[in-house]
Amino acid sequence: MKYDVVVLGGSAAGLIAAKSAKLSFPGKKVLIIRKEEISLIPCGIPYIFSRLKSIDDDIMGIDPLKKLGVEFLIDEVIRVDITSKKVFTLKESVEYEKLVFALGSTPFVPPIEGIKNDGIFTISKDYNYLQNVLESIREARKVVVIGAGFIGVEVSDEIRKSGKDVTLVEAMDRVLPLAFDEDIASVVADKLSSNGVTIKTNSRVKRFSAAGGHVNAVELEDGEKIEADTVIVSIGYRPNTKIAKEAGLFIGKNGSIWTDEYLRTSEKDIFAAGDCAEHKDFFTRKATKLMLASTATFDARVAGCNLFGLKVIRENKGNISIFSSAINGLAMGAAGVTEATARVEGFEVEVGKFTAIDRHPGAIEDKSQQIVKLVFSKHNGILLGAQVVTGKSTGELINILGLAIQKGMTAVELATLQVGTHPLLTAAPTMYPIIIAAESVARNICLK
Amino acid sequence: MKYDVVVLGGSAAGLIAAKSAKLSFPGKKVLIIRKEEISLIPCGIPYIFSRLKSIDDDIMGIDPLKKLGVEFLIDEVIRVDITSKKVFTLKESVEYEKLVFALGSTPFVPPIEGIKNDGIFTISKDYNYLQNVLESIREARKVVVIGAGFIGVEVSDEIRKSGKDVTLVEAMDRVLPLAFDEDIASVVADKLSSNGVTIKTNSRVKRFSAAGGHVNAVELEDGEKIEADTVIVSIGYRPNTKIAKEAGLFIGKNGSIWTDEYLRTSEKDIFAAGDCAEHKDFFTRKATKLMLASTATFDARVAGCNLFGLKVIRENKGNISIFSSAINGLAMGAAGVTEATARVEGFEVEVGKFTAIDRHPGAIEDKSQQIVKLVFSKHNGILLGAQVVTGKSTGELINILGLAIQKGMTAVELATLQVGTHPLLTAAPTMYPIIIAAESVARNICLK
Repeated sequence: MKYDVVVLGGSAAGLIAAKSAKLSFPGKKVLIIRKEEISLIPCGIPYIFSRLKSIDDDIMGIDPLKKLGVEFLIDEVIRVDITSKKVFTLKESVEYEKLVFALGSTPFVPPIEGIKNDGIFTISKDYNYLQNVLESIREARKVVVIGAGFIGVEVSDEIRKSGKDVTLVEAMDRVLPLAFDEDIASVVADKLSSNGVTIKTNSRVKRFSAAGGHVNAVELEDGEKIEADTVIVSIGYRPNTKIAKEAGLFIGKNGSIWTDEYLRTSEKDIFAAGDCAEHKDFFTRKATKLMLASTATFDARVAGCNLFGLKVIRENKGNISIFSSAINGLAMGAAGVTEATARVEGFEVEVGKFTAIDRHPGAIEDKSQQIVKLVFSKHNGILLGAQVVTGKSTGELINILGLAIQKGMTAVELATLQVGTHPLLTAAPTMYPIIIAAESVARNICLK
Repeated sequence: MKYDVVVLGGSAAGLIAAKSAKLSFPGKKVLIIRKEEISLIPCGIPYIFSRLKSIDDDIMGIDPLKKLGVEFLIDEVIRVDITSKKVFTLKESVEYEKLVFALGSTPFVPPIEGIKNDGIFTISKDYNYLQNVLESIREARKVVVIGAGFIGVEVSDEIRKSGKDVTLVEAMDRVLPLAFDEDIASVVADKLSSNGVTIKTNSRVKRFSAAGGHVNAVELEDGEKIEADTVIVSIGYRPNTKIAKEAGLFIGKNGSIWTDEYLRTSEKDIFAAGDCAEHKDFFTRKATKLMLASTATFDARVAGCNLFGLKVIRENKGNISIFSSAINGLAMGAAGVTEATARVEGFEVEVGKFTAIDRHPGAIEDKSQQIVKLVFSKHNGILLGAQVVTGKSTGELINILGLAIQKGMTAVELATLQVGTHPLLTAAPTMYPIIIAAESVARNICLK
């Protein structure tokens, strides 16, 4: 069996890499090898706990890909031989001309005492595993979520919405510590609390206690014991690199498959995309563990269209860590670096911040408070990072700011941005928050 | 009485010009002269007909400006003398160092037979006049709106929502003919119709018939007679240029006050901003009548900070005609040129279009169909225009595309845009519509 392009893994990165390859090089034969019969929409998983009716509402369809002519092999990859250019699965071997690693990541299970007891789960992407999580939560009265990254925050809020008693435990000093500064994170924490989630920051888990092999409490290092019928551990994911490593691919400093700007690995004809691939931060230039479906599809688009010859203009110049999330009654987004990270990394910054409402006039229905925080380089006014908290338009509002970051825009440019505004859709033109937040910084720079 | 900066007019352009002047040059004395005690939020006016409880919910507050130290004179401007640098009002005269014309526009009243009858109104920005319109509509059973620009469309939908029988009459072949191509305009028209508004395109008004001095029907050129208790005529606005003209300011080809990239007029020390100022299209470079509050505030920000010395980087390089609007159940936005306009103007274009939903997975609540149409230059792939129809995130989605236009971005760049996506906020990363619409065009350009 021989294919022009073989993609290992069939979640967001794998599917889009295959699609991009097929569309960019229509004559090529493309095969996806994946273990799972069913693949879930990764970012939809937190919503199986309340909003969606069942896990089946969160399945990623593959019919459009099949219609394009992409073939599928449902099988587990065992080994890749780069000399003979062959992939070995449990059942067969497949020859490739170009190979894409898109094998994703696995939830990290910390070596905490008692973690093997029943009732303790991670948020895996496996359909059957998630059925078990769901069942356990349904029977639980008290749920403890460990880790206040965005999955921990979303899952806590959703489970709370389904009527359970939920405690969210975070080792750092705030929720979403990597995405938001304290001033923005506190707005999210307040909303979570008012939705009924109990938040414990600066809290590390010492052990899980159990009765009859089933968890019954989470014990913190400060001695507090939180009763728990079910525990969700969500403190990060590890890239799936075993097969890549054994095949001889270079693994980068942070443990992911090293890639260049075109998503090529250290081996000829082999690319990597998504959670298993190394990402580089747009500003700090450090290797970063960025595991988002949006990042994965971005990688996959770049990899897919560069497989048979480079198209220099389609490359990954660095990841801006852009993401959005939502809990009941509040949406949030971030892109680039936070103020805290910027300072740690040695950037001198000026911050512009503005609070408006996301509709106008104030009497209009369906409005939310809208906080925009912009972090600029002090010397040239270039936008380094943005944080937004508001209603549902957050998702696209942060994408405006992400675009501004990618284009190296300055406070002065943002202060005279041409935007459309509308009473039912946006803040007022007189106080459009991106413009006003940028204006104060632009003025400081101009007046110098 | 002498001020460093005198601003004529106190709606969106005037208020923001004064604010920008005061913030950019804190030591200067700034005065706004305006006729109206109360100024309304212009884009909120269509919503006084149903969504807002009263006109008083749509008042633009001036307290923040007063706190900044901006002074107000409520009086009518009669004449400006550019030699003595004086503004004469009904009651007094004020000397200026820098003057800003922000006198806005007035609804155009076409010379149609019978238009002077009672019950026929325009959408003026005058508080008392609008009280009369509101009263007439409240008593009406049948309302006819003439002109399907965005004010006509919004007003029709709002009045319909309040339970009246509404007919919308448009001379051109579609609703919103300047903002949207037929394929997008038809989606808006379908929604308007399903909300119960009767639409008559390709229809010109011949005369208004009346009984006892009060309108009772609109007669079309094809002979049809539409019963009407109230008529709203909304076929455009004319810039208020009388005082500027008499003062000797150069009036541009389209009848507005001529301005350069810094919003300076033909006379030294005099600027103009907003509806009364000439705008230049970003791509066609033609003078354009762009009368939007968002455009006015943009002008005002540029004018305000350039009053006492140019800051070359803050200029108006051309207007991208960006706007958004919404009716019940559908929001829409446009920026740059339409496909139709591009072709008329001599651009060779390639169009990318994609329809997705604005949430993911498909089972998620609160979703809308999302149509994104992108118009690119065929030769270099530069984005010339965008049209969007979807849910409430349209307002910010079109602002992403507006930014892309302002930065001269290409299909290839947009196809590898880094965006954040989230189930409750945006389309899926695998089918983010801006990316997919751009991808097809990028591919064509790359494969050439």
